Amino acid sequence: MPARAGGSRRRTLQDVAEVVGLSVNTVSRALRDLPGVSEQTRARIKAEAEQIGYFPNAHARSLVLGSHKTIGVILTDLANPFFNDLVTEIEEQAILAGYTIVLLLSDEDPDREQTAVDTALRSGVDGILAVPVQGRSNPWTTVIRAGIPLVLIGRELPGLDLDFFSTDNRAGRRMTAETVIARGARDIILVEEDLRVSTVAHRLDGFREALEANGIAFDRRRTALVPSRRTARGASLWRGEDAYRVASDLLESGRVPDAFLVGNDYLGLGLYAALRERRIRVPEEVMVIGWGDYPFSRYLDPPLASVRLPTIELARRAVSRLLSLLDGTADPGPVTELFPSELMLRASANP
Amino acid sequence: MPARAGGSRRRTLQDVAEVVGLSVNTVSRALRDLPGVSEQTRARIKAEAEQIGYFPNAHARSLVLGSHKTIGVILTDLANPFFNDLVTEIEEQAILAGYTIVLLLSDEDPDREQTAVDTALRSGVDGILAVPVQGRSNPWTTVIRAGIPLVLIGRELPGLDLDFFSTDNRAGRRMTAETVIARGARDIILVEEDLRVSTVAHRLDGFREALEANGIAFDRRRTALVPSRRTARGASLWRGEDAYRVASDLLESGRVPDAFLVGNDYLGLGLYAALRERRIRVPEEVMVIGWGDYPFSRYLDPPLASVRLPTIELARRAVSRLLSLLDGTADPGPVTELFPSELMLRASANP
Repeated sequence: MPARAGGSRRRTLQDVAEVVGLSVNTVSRALRDLPGVSEQTRARIKAEAEQIGYFPNAHARSLVLGSHKTIGVILTDLANPFFNDLVTEIEEQAILAGYTIVLLLSDEDPDREQTAVDTALRSGVDGILAVPVQGRSNPWTTVIRAGIPLVLIGRELPGLDLDFFSTDNRAGRRMTAETVIARGARDIILVEEDLRVSTVAHRLDGFREALEANGIAFDRRRTALVPSRRTARGASLWRGEDAYRVASDLLESGRVPDAFLVGNDYLGLGLYAALRERRIRVPEEVMVIGWGDYPFSRYLDPPLASVRLPTIELARRAVSRLLSLLDGTADPGPVTELFPSELMLRASANP
Repeated sequence: MPARAGGSRRRTLQDVAEVVGLSVNTVSRALRDLPGVSEQTRARIKAEAEQIGYFPNAHARSLVLGSHKTIGVILTDLANPFFNDLVTEIEEQAILAGYTIVLLLSDEDPDREQTAVDTALRSGVDGILAVPVQGRSNPWTTVIRAGIPLVLIGRELPGLDLDFFSTDNRAGRRMTAETVIARGARDIILVEEDLRVSTVAHRLDGFREALEANGIAFDRRRTALVPSRRTARGASLWRGEDAYRVASDLLESGRVPDAFLVGNDYLGLGLYAALRERRIRVPEEVMVIGWGDYPFSRYLDPPLASVRLPTIELARRAVSRLLSLLDGTADPGPVTELFPSELMLRASANP
């Protein structure tokens, strides 16, 4: 009968030594394939070790080899489908390279980010992939000082000269604005999360560029910022409610723009609800384009046009860069790579 | 000027020793607050260690303390919002208890699950929280034999006598069936993922119980199984397409049931699309109730009634159980806890 989990303790080298009646030293040498043990004895020791459920401790070995084979992944939250895909691909690539990932979440909270960084460093991670919280660079200078390779994803920290892998937010946003302008829109509103991160700043830049290139003045009336409640724990609060409120307030004033561009498809859910309540038809009266191409977007009524992000490619390249920093084969940095996104044109932007 | 990440290596005790001009032994004793070092020297060593960016290595310390302070979390995928919330809360609770989590994904693939378990054991995790892949118990007997505490979430493995924390799937599904029966439905179809896991089996049981208690025969025509494509990597393939196809085939035959109950809200997306195409009105002609209360569900047209899962409570209790196994304070097991879910009644089930 197998021992119950928790009812028995973890097996040690000492346990194996007792079973085979040899010294801990001999057992250790046999299991690590070092000389000084006969082939026959080595085989017997390995068989007995497996039989009693002994697993070599990678941490102990890592002290010898100088590596713990873990990569810290520090994200703001998991509620964003972009981050799900990102973590999934990072984990895949890390496992292929013989690493495991230690996942830490900051929830857009600078104090939690500090805790996450401290935890990662104390856990002895070899390197870190991070989506940093809004603009605060303090925890990251600690990582740099500690000599731990660090690669940023999605949000940059200007001034720290770090490797940076991201969607090209500026070009992507410009593309969505030009799409609705080409379809006749002049009064366009960008609905974005009110977050002071480079991602949002770059999207605003791209939006303004597209307007100005088409002779449309960019002013405050062109943007609607949705308060971010992502500091609340978990996915449950990051939904469409706030976008619904912001869009409702705007439509209450009687203004119906030609098009809405939104910062993520969750915001699009709230916007759709506000428009439906007022029987404002999409796309006949107003066009809508989302961002992120979340799993539900193509199923909305009407299907929501959205921007598909280059998540897989971006994750692969970022992990590859980190691995090259870890094994010493990296080209001199810092390296910045921006990946193009793709507009999934659907009925919401096809009047 | 701070050294660039990757341009400098990780600081060691030796580095600190060189800076302060003392032996590694003295520096080590000072940093670990052991006797034999004056207060003044200890303070100087700590200050210099911080200055050059030295972080104590938790792995090295754990060899002394006998714990690595990591919990392995092995999940099938991150595309399911239930798992996002679960991981977020597990991470939160683990950090509070001084642990970090090592995240490993199996993607419903037994071979990947084996790899995940091997990786967790080799990483020296103290304990494991797992959502196991369909019915295969081989990797888990290895964990039990190795004496690593193991707590299952969401899916049980009968015969292994393991701790098990889950939504009460049977009661939840019974509740949804009784809700549509109370509203007059007799011809009800359960649309579930075609996965051989206890979760789906329990929901089928609850469905059948509700039908039979109300004098409705349970036969094969009462269920529609949607092929699971979750073995493909990542969120991108686990969406509504297959449910759309299964529902379309069913409706093509001319049969319009009184109600659909669906296994997760992604499946509801595909079902909605199939119904909309045929101008079959929800809820007037057919009621629909989802499962999981995903972030988009309340924003669909009509808003999708769905079952909200007790994710936070479940995660907290499962982590708490694992911690009690780790610190030796656990009550004898195995422990099974089933948590009630809540029906979020919305227009799709309110004719």
